[in-house]
Amino acid sequence: MLRGIIRGNIVSTRKQEALVGSKFMEVEIMENGELTGKYVIAVDSVGAGIGETVLITTGSSARLALHNTNAPCDAVIVGIVD
Amino acid sequence: MLRGIIRGNIVSTRKQEALVGSKFMEVEIMENGELTGKYVIAVDSVGAGIGETVLITTGSSARLALHNTNAPCDAVIVGIVD
Amino acid sequence: MLRGIIRGNIVSTRKQEALVGSKFMEVEIMENGELTGKYVIAVDSVGAGIGETVLITTGSSARLALHNTNAPCDAVIVGIVD
Amino acid sequence: MLRGIIRGNIVSTRKQEALVGSKFMEVEIMENGELTGKYVIAVDSVGAGIGETVLITTGSSARLALHNTNAPCDAVIVGIVD
Amino acid sequence: MLRGIIRGNIVSTRKQEALVGSKFMEVEIMENGELTGKYVIAVDSVGAGIGETVLITTGSSARLALHNTNAPCDAVIVGIVD
Repeated sequence: MLRGIIRGNIVSTRKQEALVGSKFMEVEIMENGELTGKYVIAVDSVGAGIGETVLITTGSSARLALHNTNAPCDAVIVGIVD
Repeated sequence: MLRGIIRGNIVSTRKQEALVGSKFMEVEIMENGELTGKYVIAVDSVGAGIGETVLITTGSSARLALHNTNAPCDAVIVGIVD
Repeated sequence: MLRGIIRGNIVSTRKQEALVGSKFMEVEIMENGELTGKYVIAVDSVGAGIGETVLITTGSSARLALHNTNAPCDAVIVGIVD
Repeated sequence: MLRGIIRGNIVSTRKQEALVGSKFMEVEIMENGELTGKYVIAVDSVGAGIGETVLITTGSSARLALHNTNAPCDAVIVGIVD
Repeated sequence: MLRGIIRGNIVSTRKQEALVGSKFMEVEIMENGELTGKYVIAVDSVGAGIGETVLITTGSSARLALHNTNAPCDAVIVGIVD
């Protein structure tokens, strides 16, 4: 899993129907408490906002965090770090 | 998920039958709004064209965006960024 | 699979319900016995603690090590290296 | 998906039974039409040969291109680029 | 798939029950016949030993090479290169 800080959100009006309502966040990855300059785009599942530090699950496991587990999504924000 | 700009398309006449009709696009990845010089090849599922900024889902989740979810494909364009 | 040393733990109060009770550890990866300066966050399944050298399984296979195999998790500590 | 040029083949007499008959090819990856110096080993499913430019699918989706979808394989050549 | 040379084995007494009996090998990856200095840890399924050149399958496909396909493992040695 990855930890990172939400830097922004991405808007896509024309997209797969199963992704309608998804909030796409761009997250800067941290390792050992330091920012890496690498980014991933993840769908929020816990009500996280810009500037918050979050946990991200990637791959097919990510879909288990969504209401629609058949959505074509490979990265989901699954927790907010205290 | 990844964000990037479609740079070109790739034509393959001789391919797996389940991929017939697929439009293969080469996409340059962006992170934090900047081009990275890294590329991925993804099948289009939303009618995207060259020069458009898109969202890509990778891995087994990508197949959920295709009509044929048994196609041997690991990356699909699932949205066009506004 | 990956080998690494547990460097710390990460606390997330607000998270996916299926992850409640999970212990998130930040692990520094080793290759060929040397530290790499790269990190991964994994859920513990074997009672490992900070400073211990562990084995990590990533991807969808990781979930097979959890009580709840539907938890949205992509990395699990599956063994402690002697 | 990846695009690359087949550079050679790899012979393995002693292998998993489900892989008997598989043709393992070493492929140099291209990005944006340029060689990267990175390589992947993929099983051929379309009759491709050394020197040809091909499309590769990786991960669990790759197996869908094989006769035996239970073969322990994570990369398959699924098309020849024109 | 990956090709590499087995450099050593890793012993883990305290581990997930489904991994009991697994032989964990640390393998140095080769690309285009040259050593890369990168390593992966894989479970042996073909009786390979230190110094041998092997083929490795990663991800969920790897488990198909094991007797227990529910073992939490993401990399398996599936062949010995001639």
